[in-house]
Amino acid sequence: MLFIARKALASVHSKASRLTAREVHCLSSILLSPPLVSLDFPENWTPHSDPPPPVSFESVQKTLVIDGKVIAEEIRTKIVNEVCKMKKAVGKVPGLAVVLVGQQRDSQTYVRNKIIACEETGIKSVLAELPEDCTEEQIIRVLTKFNEDTSIHGVLVQLPLPQHLDEVKILNMVRLEKDVDGFHPLHMGNLAMRGREPLFVSCTPKGCVELLIRSGVEIAGKNAVVIGRSNIVGLPMSLLLQRHDATVSTVHAFSKDPEHITREADIVVAAAGIPNLVRGSWLKPGAVVIDVGTCPVEDSSCEHGYRLVGDVCYEEALGVASAITPVPGGVGPMTIAMLLCNTLDAAKRISF
Amino acid sequence: MLFIARKALASVHSKASRLTAREVHCLSSILLSPPLVSLDFPENWTPHSDPPPPVSFESVQKTLVIDGKVIAEEIRTKIVNEVCKMKKAVGKVPGLAVVLVGQQRDSQTYVRNKIIACEETGIKSVLAELPEDCTEEQIIRVLTKFNEDTSIHGVLVQLPLPQHLDEVKILNMVRLEKDVDGFHPLHMGNLAMRGREPLFVSCTPKGCVELLIRSGVEIAGKNAVVIGRSNIVGLPMSLLLQRHDATVSTVHAFSKDPEHITREADIVVAAAGIPNLVRGSWLKPGAVVIDVGTCPVEDSSCEHGYRLVGDVCYEEALGVASAITPVPGGVGPMTIAMLLCNTLDAAKRISF
Repeated sequence: MLFIARKALASVHSKASRLTAREVHCLSSILLSPPLVSLDFPENWTPHSDPPPPVSFESVQKTLVIDGKVIAEEIRTKIVNEVCKMKKAVGKVPGLAVVLVGQQRDSQTYVRNKIIACEETGIKSVLAELPEDCTEEQIIRVLTKFNEDTSIHGVLVQLPLPQHLDEVKILNMVRLEKDVDGFHPLHMGNLAMRGREPLFVSCTPKGCVELLIRSGVEIAGKNAVVIGRSNIVGLPMSLLLQRHDATVSTVHAFSKDPEHITREADIVVAAAGIPNLVRGSWLKPGAVVIDVGTCPVEDSSCEHGYRLVGDVCYEEALGVASAITPVPGGVGPMTIAMLLCNTLDAAKRISF
Repeated sequence: MLFIARKALASVHSKASRLTAREVHCLSSILLSPPLVSLDFPENWTPHSDPPPPVSFESVQKTLVIDGKVIAEEIRTKIVNEVCKMKKAVGKVPGLAVVLVGQQRDSQTYVRNKIIACEETGIKSVLAELPEDCTEEQIIRVLTKFNEDTSIHGVLVQLPLPQHLDEVKILNMVRLEKDVDGFHPLHMGNLAMRGREPLFVSCTPKGCVELLIRSGVEIAGKNAVVIGRSNIVGLPMSLLLQRHDATVSTVHAFSKDPEHITREADIVVAAAGIPNLVRGSWLKPGAVVIDVGTCPVEDSSCEHGYRLVGDVCYEEALGVASAITPVPGGVGPMTIAMLLCNTLDAAKRISF
């Protein structure tokens, strides 16, 4: 029954076909463990090509639609008051600088919404627009200026950046105390580690948890599945839910049976960026569903020629989930409200 | 079927009984989300008081015992060679400084083993022993000295520290380039985030993954369950397995049904520090089990009056798991080998 043996060679052989030069070098060194970045293969999801027909459930569940717009509006009203108080107390308002590179339509829309939200809440905003083919040095010059500007308390670089730019290097340039997106690895580490408090929690995960709490959803002890593990949403979402004592499973493009794992979840956060990835059949009846996806899909019947579609097949989820965020009008408005919150917090830290 | 409503008040009420003063303050502010450190309740596991009788399985699985001693020895032999080469090339050897506070028996044993391992591989080691009642300032003075000493490439503080000391503050004092334990939040963030490489990966998780790879266990796409979420083992273990493309679930003391979740896993890493927490019935037949627990349990029949017991009920796991690490002789020797590796890496970064 019991024998002592080793299968190292088998391992090397089975992996050899996908080894990079760097990994081969690594194999000749002390450890077999490869450098971590060499493991970062692209996340290619394979959604159903032929979507299965909608499932009909015998016991129809009443589904609460979590209204992100209303909740975000409540929060923004409080921010307006806080900004007024700050202005009275110290004669200053919070300031947010946004760096936008290139002309990607989604990015332009997101940035415009952020700037409008600042205006509406009394937060000063500055937008630096750089051309698609700008150099790293140009961006770093702009960031350095904002880092040093005492009227600016939050600095963010709209992602994704054009391919030729080094995202890691550029994000590292944002001053820690102004990194209101919370994307710096130091903030991520402090988010992950018990006993520590990051200066900023990334806006989307922070907004999702606030939605859950305000919708009366208990997080502690619940099974939570986060679909997607991007550095800007999925990863910090998993870490934040774990800090809230959920039992967190993270599903990604390499997961063998995402449907099975997701069906175990009391709370599902879908952040893969794949329209309709999560079908009704993926959900445990009564699960709470937070849909972070917002993918524009062409639709000539809509005002702008497209409509926004979430990661979750909304129609199928209704009647299965106990609560769900709609797209649009769910997570989106909360993300912006959290950005305003983080900017206000940054300003308070400096000013009081 | 579909209605729009909100249950915020219910949430506040249901949480009110466990709110701290800080959380109450938080509730009166903009967000309902509490500060994260206020969520860090102690991890109190409730293992079975009456262990269920061992389960007998119809199809008996052959269980590979992963010999950590043998694998660690192979790695240490390579380290000896590298240290020799370094001495020839630059006339220096790697240096490790260990800070030990107080006289806890386990800590003393661990530190002694680390020092012996250094001696055996040609790495210089320095031990600073401080009394149980020492002040933060005393420790920081010692750390500052090691941080500045060019013959020291790795600095570690043996945990746990006595209660009166601020662990976060003290760990933050270790220079990033010498933090061979990888406990700094910047290293943890870089471990978590795709596209980034931490200067150091914590020794125990790094050793566990190296054991898996050398035992021919494929990690990518597999369901992995990590039991425990300590900053020094469970958390970095989950993050590292995720970087290796496992589908990771993290089970902790607040998890409702750890047994059920664990039974889904192809790879189980037990790091809760609770002897025999994981029973045979928790394991899917064929699962690979890495047992990080090493709890001394009194046993007068043993040489030192105690024996080391893992988190996994070893006898029950045999015949269910396809592979398992024994305690002792599994993860322990690998942890020390990885510490030597990290120290060597730190020295190479400075010297070449």
